[in-house]
Formats: sequence, structure tokens, C-alpha cells
Amino acid sequence: MLKAAIVGATGIVGQQFLVALHHHPWFEVRQLAASERSAGKKYSQAIRDEKTGGLRWYCSEEPPSEAMDLNVVKTSELKLSECDIVFTAIEPEEAKILEPQLAQKVPVVSTASAFRYEEDTPILIPGVNSDHADLLDLQRSKRGWRGFITPIPNCTTTGLTITLKPIFDEFGVQSVLMTSMQAVSGAGRSPGVIALDIIDNVIPFIPNEEEKVQQETLKILGSFNGNSIKPADFGVSCTCTRVNVREGHTESVLVSTVKENSVEDVAKTMRGFDGGLREMGLPSAPKQMITVHDDPYRPQPRLDRDTENGMTTAVGRVRKDTVMKNGVKYLLVSHNTKMGAAAGAVLVAELLKKKDIL
Amino acid sequence: MLKAAIVGATGIVGQQFLVALHHHPWFEVRQLAASERSAGKKYSQAIRDEKTGGLRWYCSEEPPSEAMDLNVVKTSELKLSECDIVFTAIEPEEAKILEPQLAQKVPVVSTASAFRYEEDTPILIPGVNSDHADLLDLQRSKRGWRGFITPIPNCTTTGLTITLKPIFDEFGVQSVLMTSMQAVSGAGRSPGVIALDIIDNVIPFIPNEEEKVQQETLKILGSFNGNSIKPADFGVSCTCTRVNVREGHTESVLVSTVKENSVEDVAKTMRGFDGGLREMGLPSAPKQMITVHDDPYRPQPRLDRDTENGMTTAVGRVRKDTVMKNGVKYLLVSHNTKMGAAAGAVLVAELLKKKDIL
Amino acid sequence: MLKAAIVGATGIVGQQFLVALHHHPWFEVRQLAASERSAGKKYSQAIRDEKTGGLRWYCSEEPPSEAMDLNVVKTSELKLSECDIVFTAIEPEEAKILEPQLAQKVPVVSTASAFRYEEDTPILIPGVNSDHADLLDLQRSKRGWRGFITPIPNCTTTGLTITLKPIFDEFGVQSVLMTSMQAVSGAGRSPGVIALDIIDNVIPFIPNEEEKVQQETLKILGSFNGNSIKPADFGVSCTCTRVNVREGHTESVLVSTVKENSVEDVAKTMRGFDGGLREMGLPSAPKQMITVHDDPYRPQPRLDRDTENGMTTAVGRVRKDTVMKNGVKYLLVSHNTKMGAAAGAVLVAELLKKKDIL
Amino acid sequence: MLKAAIVGATGIVGQQFLVALHHHPWFEVRQLAASERSAGKKYSQAIRDEKTGGLRWYCSEEPPSEAMDLNVVKTSELKLSECDIVFTAIEPEEAKILEPQLAQKVPVVSTASAFRYEEDTPILIPGVNSDHADLLDLQRSKRGWRGFITPIPNCTTTGLTITLKPIFDEFGVQSVLMTSMQAVSGAGRSPGVIALDIIDNVIPFIPNEEEKVQQETLKILGSFNGNSIKPADFGVSCTCTRVNVREGHTESVLVSTVKENSVEDVAKTMRGFDGGLREMGLPSAPKQMITVHDDPYRPQPRLDRDTENGMTTAVGRVRKDTVMKNGVKYLLVSHNTKMGAAAGAVLVAELLKKKDIL
Repeated sequence: MLKAAIVGATGIVGQQFLVALHHHPWFEVRQLAASERSAGKKYSQAIRDEKTGGLRWYCSEEPPSEAMDLNVVKTSELKLSECDIVFTAIEPEEAKILEPQLAQKVPVVSTASAFRYEEDTPILIPGVNSDHADLLDLQRSKRGWRGFITPIPNCTTTGLTITLKPIFDEFGVQSVLMTSMQAVSGAGRSPGVIALDIIDNVIPFIPNEEEKVQQETLKILGSFNGNSIKPADFGVSCTCTRVNVREGHTESVLVSTVKENSVEDVAKTMRGFDGGLREMGLPSAPKQMITVHDDPYRPQPRLDRDTENGMTTAVGRVRKDTVMKNGVKYLLVSHNTKMGAAAGAVLVAELLKKKDIL
Repeated sequence: MLKAAIVGATGIVGQQFLVALHHHPWFEVRQLAASERSAGKKYSQAIRDEKTGGLRWYCSEEPPSEAMDLNVVKTSELKLSECDIVFTAIEPEEAKILEPQLAQKVPVVSTASAFRYEEDTPILIPGVNSDHADLLDLQRSKRGWRGFITPIPNCTTTGLTITLKPIFDEFGVQSVLMTSMQAVSGAGRSPGVIALDIIDNVIPFIPNEEEKVQQETLKILGSFNGNSIKPADFGVSCTCTRVNVREGHTESVLVSTVKENSVEDVAKTMRGFDGGLREMGLPSAPKQMITVHDDPYRPQPRLDRDTENGMTTAVGRVRKDTVMKNGVKYLLVSHNTKMGAAAGAVLVAELLKKKDIL
Repeated sequence: MLKAAIVGATGIVGQQFLVALHHHPWFEVRQLAASERSAGKKYSQAIRDEKTGGLRWYCSEEPPSEAMDLNVVKTSELKLSECDIVFTAIEPEEAKILEPQLAQKVPVVSTASAFRYEEDTPILIPGVNSDHADLLDLQRSKRGWRGFITPIPNCTTTGLTITLKPIFDEFGVQSVLMTSMQAVSGAGRSPGVIALDIIDNVIPFIPNEEEKVQQETLKILGSFNGNSIKPADFGVSCTCTRVNVREGHTESVLVSTVKENSVEDVAKTMRGFDGGLREMGLPSAPKQMITVHDDPYRPQPRLDRDTENGMTTAVGRVRKDTVMKNGVKYLLVSHNTKMGAAAGAVLVAELLKKKDIL
Repeated sequence: MLKAAIVGATGIVGQQFLVALHHHPWFEVRQLAASERSAGKKYSQAIRDEKTGGLRWYCSEEPPSEAMDLNVVKTSELKLSECDIVFTAIEPEEAKILEPQLAQKVPVVSTASAFRYEEDTPILIPGVNSDHADLLDLQRSKRGWRGFITPIPNCTTTGLTITLKPIFDEFGVQSVLMTSMQAVSGAGRSPGVIALDIIDNVIPFIPNEEEKVQQETLKILGSFNGNSIKPADFGVSCTCTRVNVREGHTESVLVSTVKENSVEDVAKTMRGFDGGLREMGLPSAPKQMITVHDDPYRPQPRLDRDTENGMTTAVGRVRKDTVMKNGVKYLLVSHNTKMGAAAGAVLVAELLKKKDIL
């Protein structure tokens, strides 16, 4: 068993890490770090609201009992020598400072965006760009770290890139247009999306989201030559909106491919897509990277987000587009706080372990 | 004052007609028709639930008092000789049969889709294709009717076409891509969208909606040569979804123009767009056909749908697209049950009156 | 294995029966009946929308594969001789006619209200009034039926009565005041609650609901002397409202007891309440009839409805009331379409089997 | 014109004050105070998000143009000598410190709870306890202030107390039981209710709310003998919950009266209730303090909250209760951010002006 620590353990993503690592066959959570307010308390106390006695626990799964008795410390007090991997669930500004300190001693799998756009840093989605993981060796040696930092993508990038990958490999991609209808959980809880703002409403703007998705998609689908990642070379144009949905990002996608395609072939390619995951036997990997629906009323976030524990990407309405050259359209639903966050980060850790990078 | 009748007066769109015609300076509602169940009752009784005593009144405005005392009759019992115009708010299958019967004697402004795609029938949006109204003379003579049928567009077409018009005129349009996030009121109430289906959800499919919007947009922006409408010649590709919003369709639009454009010029063109409405002095016309926002968080359906009584189209986030040639992107909010339904139909009637076609 | 039939199999409650009976150790679904529109089709076809190809399947669980190949027949065509039990999921008016026809030959467990208020008919909640089941023998002989009809309570009654039972037994009940905040699924789908009506809203009235809850509560908590049920003798006063929640009725309850009570004792009594279920070993029975929370923010419908597959009643905020004599207040959440509907009816069937009444 | 200042002007309640005082015939907003972050900026800048350019404006009404050019200062920098009244919209902890400093020089009408429970401080609802205003003279002299502090009630108290008042006067009140279904706007925006928590949910607990409502109701309905307020002497028992509604608190109320009552008389008494407001001619006063509906489906927060600009309390389902002695039940909807907040505070100021206390 590898010994894991979680930084930012009392927040919503930290809690999702606890759930994702509960009864994990390879990793065991041994240390928890959080802000000064929580440090020095047992986890069960740290998430208890003193005034009301209520629990500040935000997952639908119950809090794992093994975590409740762990002591919460400040990040600087983590015993990194007793740690094989650190999962971080903190804000980008904090990540920029803390993650390099951690990475000097131990591998860091991060949900923050702080290092996503660094040249020596891959943005990993197992099955999509597993080979990019080797860039971490270079990062390590270049930075003189014993560990490394490997961030997962923005939750809106994840489903888009997973569904693009088989199309990209089979038909080539010329351009991608995407409009997202994102769940409120994507904004976290501090302060997250206020109910007042989203009841009976759509919010047409999420700061920096479109730029992130555009840049990350090209990097993830880029080619790694052993030294660096060359981003894929096609246009990506996004409009990101927020809708009144708890979990599960919906995306309306139009892809113009290089080669001719048929709707049947695109659907078949998606259905067959595996990215080598099956044979690797990663514990958190879904059986199907992509679940393609024939029912035109699918995918729906409420019905499809939890399929395969939120690790598959649900696709539907695959159909011809008549405006773009070799245009094909579809909708997808991706679980933004499972595959798109902590559980996706655990899947990355599993890949790294399998590849002996960890 | 022109004497108006409403067919389908007890349904939600019929009620919206009553509201839109309340205190109207040019039209006066004198007759109401509805199904057999309601016929023979006063309107105030017809909309009362006998079992519970509750009112089946669905508008946020109070029921106009002048309507409450009118008798409801079957459509076949309307006194068409005492009627200058009929507004219909019925299902397409019914419209196909009833509207021609009415049109033999009196002009019909319809919210149904039954006749939208007929060659001799315009789909009017005042300010966008006011000149198409003249096609009604041909319809009249060709069909041997004393009246005519003029349908308004699908509510999702309305905002899209209004915002495309100034761009089309100024820069030419090469192609249009649109993903809609439509309000539940667009589905009416029989049965409409069930709460069970839309709470915490997005529904990715609305039967026939995408085809309607694509076809109607090209017809409305088509050119009328005095004899027939030649549809505009560009690609339109839509994805129509339903979100958890009561009123106000949001649309994410990408336009590729023929000529080069700048974001500033597109916004300016939209802001200045009037379509000749201002000088016509139509009572229901908004001061601004299009309200362009600079705040990136706008337009939002809850905040912007009611601007100018729901008759303006709110636009925001006008910005460059980098994927399409001369691409420009924006979001719009259009009030689907005001400008997109009964109030929009009343505006059409005002145009016809102003043009002496009525 | 007992052979079961479901009447009303294509509706939402019928589907919930299929889910509740999937892999059931005692019952096997062998026949399905529905309306004429569905009769003659395989179940998989009967629930398919011909126009769009979409499935009319309304449970979050996938449709049980064993049901998909069954033929759907009209109720009159069920082979009752090959049937040990019929579960009905139909409207009360229909139930009034069909259920006696079925009961002449076979036991009927019904979700309809049609027979709830008959003198010779119990309203069973296993663990609360299991002994009332013996009234079915009298019903049988009195009506000359080989089977019987046993309806489950209204879904709003269920949680209230379960939580009252231990208090009633321990402290006696003088009066009960309850305000419910009911989920939209309680209204079914035909037409159910329209999204337009409940978005950003509370509906303060549900026809006949308050009367049903008041009457059923007293009957269920009544005493059975071997011949008839004598309703409990205390006041029940309800206000039933509808809120924007999919599943899970929330109820704010105030009980005035006969004997003095303490909050601790009430909570303890609820926690210990079992009603003899544990030793009976009914497959669908929850481990805890009542789950009592200390966290003042619980119970919440979204967090607590699915506990123990929706078969437990979640209680929280047990606290003293200062207005009523021996007043104690609490809130409860009960899963209205699990314990409160089909799954609750299956639990009744399990009780009847265990008691050899079936 | 009296010169008004608003403290906490950039927050949501501060903005509601600006809206409530826009074009007010008696008061003119001349000074604005807010936190250090905003101090030194024009109001239009202070509410602009620098990063995104979006407006942090939270009312559905547009920002009053006259406010946009005012300079925002720190509270300590307000020129109190140029000010006739201060409206405060700040948190209780801050109010405890700032309001006495202000009240030394100028009258303060407060939305905070800080001083509500002080002996020398009335909680005013014009029309309900207008006579309590005279207690402010004693407060003034006792504390040696030139001004005074007069807080409005908790927003959940307001509708309850208004509807109880005519019953209390006509029939006497023995006890009151209330379950509220409160709108999310009642929690403000810092952080307010997170969408994640309330989508598809009810939250059964609002800290301290029930105690506040219980205590305030008795104080407001208490009698003032010229020296002190003697709280009313009856039991009040509340359960306060949060539902997925933007604006408008719904309350399910049961009142046991001292004298016998009939439903008709209670409804009539409510309809006729005026509290002397009509003859006072206060600009913000509703025509009807209470609007009583016969339709059993009313009141609904979305349909009824905005009646009379949110200043009336909508009541429906007035009916007999059979459990309590002389029991009568009803539901009410009260606009928590109009009559229950800033607009209600302006109404208090109008009363004080009319009574020459200001």
C-alpha cells in the first residue's frame, strides 16, 4: 500500500479525495492537512460546525470512518518522509506556493490549475495521453525535485478531450466548437454559486473557463516526443455557461474532422475507445471510457452522471452537421466532481503507479 | 378599434393574448373561442377549476377584467362578420383544420407552426422582414380567401433571427451555429415539461425544434421579390436543449460573416438596429430591438427577459471567434412567451394594420 | 418463488414495482398488464416512444432486463390462475373497478386509495400495524373472494405514522400537527407537477391530501380486535404543500403526548423502534425503521431519502415544544416513491407471505 | 426632503434601500457608506467587479442613476450633521458597534438584529404596533442620544405578526404554531445559501431563526404603557426551514384563539385590517395590509410576493383546525426582501416622520 496525504482535506474536493480513496486497493490515506483553523483537530472535529453541531460534509457518500480519527495538521507539518504521494485540493494561488515545496520531496497530484500550463508539466487523462506521464521525469530532473507536480485538467476539459481523442485518432480534427452547460458544483463552495443567482436562470460567463478549456484540450491531445509536448494544431472555440444542475457538466460539441466520417463510424469509434486502460487494470478506470446512447433524450446530467461511478463520459445525439466540413455533432455529460476532479486525480495516481513513475 | 377574437383562449398562450391585448390602443378583444369543455361558459368560469375552486390562470399578470365576463364559444360559433382579426393559440394539428376555415373570412395571426412552411405564407417578425407581409396579398388571392393566415416563428427562431438580421445586412452571413438553453414555458402546459424531468437536469433534445429553427431562420432572412420568398443561402446548425428556467430562451451563437467584422462594429450594428420600427410607431414595439450588454455576466434569462416588456432581445459577450472565418460569438436571451409568442403575434398584427393589410 | 403480476406496468409506479422486484428472493414478475395502447407489445416496445425512439423509463435504476421481454397484456387478459399476487399501480377510479375483479381470484396489493377507507380493509405498514393483516381473512370471507385487496397508505401518511408509532406506544398521543413539504414525484407523471408551476415556488395545496393523511393515520394506529379496526382517538391536523424537490417528502411534526416525555426518551424510543421487523427477516425491510439524526441540519430530502434504499424514515431536530402539553417537535424525511409506494407495497407482500396470508 | 444616508450600501440590503428610496417623496439619499474596500470610490465603481467588468448589483430593478455618482465613504466619515436619518444594512456584530455611534447624532433605522431585544427599543411594523414608536423618546433620553436606533423585525416575523394582529385584536390569541418555508434571499449573499445545498432539497434548520421569531412576535404584539413594552402572553412555536425559492417566505400557521371564531370572520377581519395606515398616507404603505385569497392554490411565493410592490402579506386557505381549541389555520406569503427588509424599514421611517419622531 502506498501512503497518501491529502492537502486541503476539509474542503469539498478534499472530501471527495477521501471518498475516492476509501477502501482503495493501492493507496491508503495516512495524513491530512488543512488550514490553520482546522490544524490540531481530529478530522471529525475539523468538519464539525461548533455553533450548530452540524457536519460540514459535502459528499453524498458518508464520511469514511478511517479518516474521522486522523489528526489534521498544517501543510508545513506533514511528515513527507512517511508519504508516497500527496493529493492537493487547494486554490491555485496557494498551490503555486505549496505544491513546489511538497514536490521537492514527494509526488503531487493536483486538482489546481497552477502548473497546468508549464512546459515541463503534463495534464494527464489516463487513456487519453498516458504517454505524457513520462514528461514528469524531465520535470523532476530539471527542477531538481525528488517528487513532481502533475495537475489534472479543468473539469470542463475532461469530457471534451476524452470524446475528442478517438475522433482525433481516427479522423483527425480540424476544429472544435463547444457550448457548455456546467453544474454548480464546478464552482466549489467558497463561495460557489449562490442559489439566488442560479434559480430560474442561466449564467452566461465563467471567468477564464473558455481559455482554459481551449488551451488544455490542445495540450492534452498534443504529441510527446520524449522531450516536450507539442500541442495539437486545430481550432477550439468554447462558450461556457452555468445552469441549475448540481453535478454533471453537459457540453454541446461540434467537430469538423480532417477525413470524411459517418455518424455510425464516429459512434463506433467512441464506443470502442479504451486508450489502453482495460489491460492496465487501474482500479478506478471505467469499463467504458465513453458510453454512447442511442436514445435522443440522453445524455442527461441527472440520469447519466453517475454511470460507472462517474468515471465514464456519456455521449448522445451523435449526428451529422451540415455547416462545417466533415462536421459531426454530439452532446456529452461528464461528472465534474468524479472523473473531472478527485476521482480523476486518483486515476492519474493509479496510472503513475502502474507505470512505475510513482 | 379593430375587433379581435382569440381562438384557444383558455390555454396559456390564449391567456397571454388576453394580457398582450389588455388596454391595447388599436385592438379590442370581443370574442373568445375554446374547446367544447369551456364553450357556453363565461371566461371567468371557464378558467375556474370546479373541484378545487382554483383559477387555471397561468400569467403573472392578473386576468384582464374585461375578459372575465365574455362568453366562451366553440370556434365554429364565432361571429366572424363582427371580427377584424383572429389570434389563434392552438395546436398545429387543430390549426391545420381551423385556420383555413377562419381565413376564408378574416385575417388570422397564428402562433401555430401549421402554415409556416407554405410557399405563399410569410413568417413575420416586424423590423426583420416587414416587407414579407406583402406576400399575404398573394396568399389571399391564390387561396380565394377574404382573410389570410400569417404565423409567427418558433420562439427559438425569434431571438436568433432578430440578432442575425443586422449582421446579415451589414456583413453578410456565411454560416450560423447555435446551441439553445430553452425555458420550460416553451413546451406549454399540456403536458409541458414535468418538474420530475428537469429538476437538477438538462434535457438535450426537443423534437423537431432544430429543424424548425434552421428552416425558419433562412426563410425570414430571405428576400421577397414581390412574388415569392427566396430563402437566405447560408448554413444554420442548431442544438436545442431544455434547462431549468421558467421563461426566456438563452442561445449561444457563433456567426461566420462574409465580410470582415470587428467585435465593436458588430455590437454597434446590433445596437443601432431598428428595422424601421421606430418610425412606424407600433404600440408593442420595443425602443431597442436589441439590447447589447457590456457586462460579461449578461444576458441572463431571469434578469433580462422582461426588459421592455419582453419585446427586446438581450445580447452579451459579443466577442471574436478564432475558429470560423470572420467568426463572431455572442449569447442572447429572448422572452419566448412575450416577443416569442402572443405579444409577438400582436406586434405582427400592429404591423399589418400600419401597412393597411389588415 | 411466488409468481407476481403488475397492473399498470408502464407507468412510473409500475416501473418502480419492476425495480423493487428485480432479483427479489421471494417474488418473480411473470405477467405485466397495462392500457390498451401498450397491450400486445413487448415491455421494451411498450415503453419506447415511437416518434423519437426515446425510452419512457422514469426510474434512476436501469430497466430490469427480465422485464423487457415480457409481453404486456390488458388487465382482463392476465392469467390469474398462474399468479400468486398482483401488484396494482393504477388510478383510484380504475382501481375501484379492476381490483375487485382481480381479488376474486388472487391477492392484490394496491398503491391506489380506492379501498383504503373500507371497513374490512387494513392499510398496512409492516412493523407499525402488522397485526391488522389478519383483517384480510374477514375481507376474504365477507366478500367471497379467493384473494383480497390490501392498499398501502398515501405516501405522506407513511413517514408520519412510522414515526408516531413508537411515541404512541410509549407515551400515548393526544394530538398531532403536521406541515408537509412534498416532493413532485408524489404527483406522478400524468400530468404530475408542471415545471412551470414549481420553479421558484411553493404550492400550498394538494387536493384531498390532508384529509387522507388525517384519516389514514388514525386507522393505521388503530387497534384490531380480531374483527375490526378501531381508529386511534387523537386529533390530527395537516397542512400539505408541494416544494421543488424531486423525491422525498419532508414533514414538520409536532406531537402532544399523553404522558410526560423528554426529548432524549423520544429520540431513544424512535431509534429503538423495530416493530418486530428484524426477527421476521423481510427482504425489503430496513435495518432501522427510523434513523434519528443529531445534526440539526438533517434530515434533508436529497441527503437522506436514499438511506437504506429509501426504506427508513429519517428524523432530526427532535426538540421540546413549549406550546402544546407534553409537546415534542421533529422533522422527518420519507422516500415517497420507495417506502411510500412500490417498495413499500412489496414489503407488505413480504409480510403477508411471512404470515402465511399469501 | 429629509436627507438620508445608507450604511452598508454596496451589499444586497443596501441596494434594496437604494431601490426603495428611489424617487421617494420624503427622503433623498445623499450619503453612502460601506467597507474600506469600497470607500473612496464612486458607487458605480464600488459595485463593479474589476476583474470581469461585471456589476455586483443584485436587485431586479436597475441601479438608480442618482446613486451611481455618489461617493462611497467609510461609516466614520459620514457627515452626520448633514443627515436626517441613517438606514443601516450591516451584520449584527458590526451593528452593535456602529449603530450606537450613529445614534448619538442621528436616528437610525436598522435591518440588523443587534438591538431588537433591548428593553428600550421597539421593533416596529407600521400598522401593527405604530404606538410603540413612542418608546424611542425614552430610548433617546435614557441613552443621552440625539438620535435613536429602531430595528425592523426578522423577515420571518413580519408576515406572521401582520396576520396575527387582526386575529389578536378581535379574538385574542392563545397559541401560535408555525412552520416556515423560507426563500434563499433571506440568507443574503455572504455567503448566503449555496446552490449546491438547496437544489432538489429542503434545509430543515436556520440557526436562531425560530427563537427570534418567537420572541419578536410577542414583543411586537405586546402592549406599550408609555414606559415599556409588555410582551404579549401566548405561546409561539416555530419550525423554520429553507426551500428552493428565491424570494418570498411561505408560512403555514395555526392559531388557537381565546374567543370562538369562524373562518369567515377571521378572513373578514384580515381583509379589513388596516392598522390606521390608510389615513396616515405613508407613501410605501400597501392598500391592503393583508390580501386574502379564496383560491386554495394561493398564496404562492412566485405569484403573490410582488403584489403591491411586495408590501402586502398574502393569505390563503383560511380554514378551521380541529385539534386546537378555537383553531384556525392559514398559509401566508410575505416578501422577505421588500416588506421584510429595506422597503419595510423605509415604511418605518415614514411612520416616524408622520409621527414627528424623526
